[in-house]
Amino acid sequence: MKVFQHVQDLGDLSVALAEAQEVKRDRYQWQHLGRNKTALLIFFNNSLRTRLSTQKAAMNLGMNVIVLDVNQGAWKLETERGVVMDGDKSEHLLEAIPVMASYCDLIGVRSFARFESREDDYEEKILNQFIRYSGRPVFFMESATVHPLQAFADLITIKEQTPSPLPLKGESGHLQDQVPSQIHSTLPLEGERGGGLWSGRPIKVVLTWAPHPRALPQAVPNSFAEWMLAASQQGLGIDFVITHPQGYELDPQFVQGARVEYDQMKAFEGADFIYAKNWSCPGVTRPQDYGKVLDDYHTMMDWCVSARQMAVTNDAHFMHCLPVRRNMIVTDDVIEGPRSLVIPEAANREISAQVVLKRMLESL
Amino acid sequence: MKVFQHVQDLGDLSVALAEAQEVKRDRYQWQHLGRNKTALLIFFNNSLRTRLSTQKAAMNLGMNVIVLDVNQGAWKLETERGVVMDGDKSEHLLEAIPVMASYCDLIGVRSFARFESREDDYEEKILNQFIRYSGRPVFFMESATVHPLQAFADLITIKEQTPSPLPLKGESGHLQDQVPSQIHSTLPLEGERGGGLWSGRPIKVVLTWAPHPRALPQAVPNSFAEWMLAASQQGLGIDFVITHPQGYELDPQFVQGARVEYDQMKAFEGADFIYAKNWSCPGVTRPQDYGKVLDDYHTMMDWCVSARQMAVTNDAHFMHCLPVRRNMIVTDDVIEGPRSLVIPEAANREISAQVVLKRMLESL
Amino acid sequence: MKVFQHVQDLGDLSVALAEAQEVKRDRYQWQHLGRNKTALLIFFNNSLRTRLSTQKAAMNLGMNVIVLDVNQGAWKLETERGVVMDGDKSEHLLEAIPVMASYCDLIGVRSFARFESREDDYEEKILNQFIRYSGRPVFFMESATVHPLQAFADLITIKEQTPSPLPLKGESGHLQDQVPSQIHSTLPLEGERGGGLWSGRPIKVVLTWAPHPRALPQAVPNSFAEWMLAASQQGLGIDFVITHPQGYELDPQFVQGARVEYDQMKAFEGADFIYAKNWSCPGVTRPQDYGKVLDDYHTMMDWCVSARQMAVTNDAHFMHCLPVRRNMIVTDDVIEGPRSLVIPEAANREISAQVVLKRMLESL
Repeated sequence: MKVFQHVQDLGDLSVALAEAQEVKRDRYQWQHLGRNKTALLIFFNNSLRTRLSTQKAAMNLGMNVIVLDVNQGAWKLETERGVVMDGDKSEHLLEAIPVMASYCDLIGVRSFARFESREDDYEEKILNQFIRYSGRPVFFMESATVHPLQAFADLITIKEQTPSPLPLKGESGHLQDQVPSQIHSTLPLEGERGGGLWSGRPIKVVLTWAPHPRALPQAVPNSFAEWMLAASQQGLGIDFVITHPQGYELDPQFVQGARVEYDQMKAFEGADFIYAKNWSCPGVTRPQDYGKVLDDYHTMMDWCVSARQMAVTNDAHFMHCLPVRRNMIVTDDVIEGPRSLVIPEAANREISAQVVLKRMLESL
Repeated sequence: MKVFQHVQDLGDLSVALAEAQEVKRDRYQWQHLGRNKTALLIFFNNSLRTRLSTQKAAMNLGMNVIVLDVNQGAWKLETERGVVMDGDKSEHLLEAIPVMASYCDLIGVRSFARFESREDDYEEKILNQFIRYSGRPVFFMESATVHPLQAFADLITIKEQTPSPLPLKGESGHLQDQVPSQIHSTLPLEGERGGGLWSGRPIKVVLTWAPHPRALPQAVPNSFAEWMLAASQQGLGIDFVITHPQGYELDPQFVQGARVEYDQMKAFEGADFIYAKNWSCPGVTRPQDYGKVLDDYHTMMDWCVSARQMAVTNDAHFMHCLPVRRNMIVTDDVIEGPRSLVIPEAANREISAQVVLKRMLESL
Repeated sequence: MKVFQHVQDLGDLSVALAEAQEVKRDRYQWQHLGRNKTALLIFFNNSLRTRLSTQKAAMNLGMNVIVLDVNQGAWKLETERGVVMDGDKSEHLLEAIPVMASYCDLIGVRSFARFESREDDYEEKILNQFIRYSGRPVFFMESATVHPLQAFADLITIKEQTPSPLPLKGESGHLQDQVPSQIHSTLPLEGERGGGLWSGRPIKVVLTWAPHPRALPQAVPNSFAEWMLAASQQGLGIDFVITHPQGYELDPQFVQGARVEYDQMKAFEGADFIYAKNWSCPGVTRPQDYGKVLDDYHTMMDWCVSARQMAVTNDAHFMHCLPVRRNMIVTDDVIEGPRSLVIPEAANREISAQVVLKRMLESL
């Protein structure tokens, strides 16, 4: 794997999920892969979960890790050619990127949406320059438009919480040999196979917008939608619904074919998983609104996920990528309740990162 | 060991001192303990010695280390439930702590006194939340009220500088087998045993307040007193005296039973070790003075440790935890003199941290 | 090697170059040397290349690395004795340096010229205190006056780009045994030996000043000149020329014996390597001008290296230490052209650092 940006980069999701399961079973078994290999993690924006979990994943694999915190304000890179660089930009990306790449084997980059230009953000200008000029495998640690390490961790978490007597596709390969036999003995015959990753009816996963006092990027909902739709298309038995107020429609490249239900209560009916997240206006219908908070959040508080909405679900699990503002996105009782998955979800960030790094190491 | 906060957490001090001695003899002999284990060091405040020495200790043990510098101002954690988080706090500790804990095996936290509320500081609100919600062993890297890694290093240093033909209790255990035989040949018979850790008369250790231009926490003197009193109570032969101006009385939970002598010169008479430190008013007698500098330091300069006071000691060693302001706390000649222990004391921070981390690894 | 500051610290350059070549062939073969050894990298100034490459070099050698970013403004060290430290300096270097040294085996320090006093900068006050008080090997990661890791990487790069059928002196030692035999079969007999490191005529290396909007230190040109002159004196066949506007004369301690040609076009004639760099006034002839930009850079733009000057060279390679301001120092077409070495030069920073660290480890 040379780039980890979209769900397609991971190929067959059931194979990837089986690999995640195997990583979780013994995360230290591939240290030969990472020996004398260095991961460079470049943060143009703050990070807690992503930094810690990715660093941990790389160390699990026996890699060296170098973390580079780049103050987006202080270290401005020139990106255009022909410019007389007599201003505040002291380095050109055409030098900076290959140089950083020369000291490592894999590169992870975090660079959030800047909300200065929808076009710049959605073209992924910065990450694409790393892909083009580094000559190294590049993985996205949340970019302007995607957060695939989060979405993969979310999928792993959903899979773990879903009773499934079915073998994952990947388990028929070499991974199977390492799985204890008592687990295999419960595997059904092929003919008993049900509706996807989990047996029986498809599970219903709902992505819901929720209020927030500041303008947030669309990276997390974009990726979550992309991954849920891909899982659905790959026959993993997911029924995916998005709910948000008018005007917050996500970019078609991520949600093509998804069902949008503007009535939050209706969307929640019978749901198995509720995934809450705020995002600012993606500017799909009105580009001039890109990155804006459309209505004062005080008027949108009924979108805050509470016992009221959870009551109409199928005893749904609650998910959020964190950090989360309590009593804006979700009430205390829901996030602290027995169906909340926010901590296991965060813990799975280590697993998703390790699968990605492992695959990149294997492709070196 | 699940928590390292108080001297009691370490149990028998002579066993711990023997363990420190063994660590110092060969600090790389336990790397199997730390293999694939990760220490997360979280700094809410600046650190030089603690960061370097603890990182080194963890690496000595073969651990991975992740250092997290948290700007206390930038990353504000909500601590109350029921709050609508629409202000400047973007994350709740009830999420942040378990998430950080999920990526590591041991957690060290530095969080100084804030001087906003004596109650908050002396309740150790922040550290206690880490203990309660992380599910990991937690060690204090200087909190609002204690600095046990420093106090343990101080005790190790005092022990090293004290002529002692006596075996430590711990040496009768498995550690003894690894000690070169020529050392054993000097061990006395049991009947020759003297007055504690060192033979002969108890040594006199004096903790003295000294002037400083800014308000400093009480963590270092609190822990030093706690440790000296415990060493004394455990029969290690320490005669402990505290001297400070009126109004700087330390909290009883740390100094219960200690002798306080307000006349500094009198306190220094016959002392073997002088431990200097400034602290602001602990607010024991007048809570409203908590965290204040009671008198302009210009009027307190005779408390600065100089040759004048050292002259009445028993050629005492000089100690300070560093950083130290010269010619405020201590004169150049005393700190540079042959009896100064400030550098060996700092070097022993690596040793005290390693004993603590080793014990925590052993208890995983 | 106890100090790495000047070219002389490295001894015979052809031995060092052979060692660099061997490091590049297999950089992981000396991990026994670095086992349980710790490099402390102290940055009083920002760093990208130096931090990453030195960290990587240390890890290649199996070392532990601790990076310490010291904000020059926030952590002010007192350097004088006798001062009552009641101001903004909370620690004295006489404590800080030995303490930091106690937690590591090797120390690297970056501390730029401050331009407050030519004397302070050229006396290397800060670095010399580390040498004097740390008791550890100290290597310069760019100081007020020198940048030897860069100059060594530059020499390695020049050597690599120069066709040479000649054995390096070092290859007659133990390194030779590890070099594949097919390379040895091309080695000429001793009598065939040509004019230095490379056969035939000496290569012409030109250091040229170039314009920049801000005042920059002289560390890079000082070291580059020092190293080129030493290579020349050691018979490596380098013809070294410096070109700059009047007033930018470098300090004699670094350029003694170098040919200075004030006409840039004339200097470039027949050159094999062009090394561009801006520097502010070294204050050699007029001390009061130290650290100044003598003329508005808009009036100096004909010094910017472009196709015009490159046309009179012997199809010269272009070199710069980076970061570089394009179209100030050099035009886009030259730096992007096939003769540009800026990226391999940066990549060789890892190699030069590794040779230095390796030698220091060997001398412990």
